[in-house]
Amino acid sequence: MGHMKFQAKIHVILKPTVNDPQGLTIKGGLQQLGFQGVESVRSGKYFEISIQAEDESDAKVLVDGMCEKLLANPVIENYEFTVSKSNS
Amino acid sequence: MGHMKFQAKIHVILKPTVNDPQGLTIKGGLQQLGFQGVESVRSGKYFEISIQAEDESDAKVLVDGMCEKLLANPVIENYEFTVSKSNS
Repeated sequence: MGHMKFQAKIHVILKPTVNDPQGLTIKGGLQQLGFQGVESVRSGKYFEISIQAEDESDAKVLVDGMCEKLLANPVIENYEFTVSKSNS
Repeated sequence: MGHMKFQAKIHVILKPTVNDPQGLTIKGGLQQLGFQGVESVRSGKYFEISIQAEDESDAKVLVDGMCEKLLANPVIENYEFTVSKSNS
C-alpha cells in the first residue's frame, strides 16, 4: 500500500525460441486478407494496472513481482513494463 | 509489398465502458497473492508484426488496416500502435 497512485503498462510475449501457433494463425489470416507484406507475427498479452505504492521504485518492485508470480510464465515468456505516476 | 522492413508494436484493449471479466479475475488473483495496492486491471492483447512496406506512412496504413480487419474488434476494443524501421 502507499499514498501515491501509479499506472503500469505491461507486455508479456513468448520468448523468441518458443513456438507461437496463435501468431502463425494470425499471420496466415492477414495474408489471406491481402496483407502480403506480413513477414512474422508474435502474439502476446497486455495489461494496464493501477496500483498504490510509496514511490516509483516501490511500484516497479511490486509490478515485477506481479509479473513473476501471476502475469507471465517466466519459463516461456518475457515481460516488459513501464510505470508512470497517475493523476487520477 | 515494399522494399523496406518495419516492425509494428500493437496494443488492443477493451474500451473503458466495456466489462473486462478477465481483468477483474486477475485483479482478484493479485490481491489474493498479497498485492493489496492493486486498484484496477485491464487486460488486452499485444502483437509484434514485421512487415514490408514502401515507407513508414505506407506501413502505418497497412497496420491500421490489419487492426480494423482482424486484430481488433472496433466495436468493443481500442487499439494503438507504433511503427519503426527494422534493421534485420
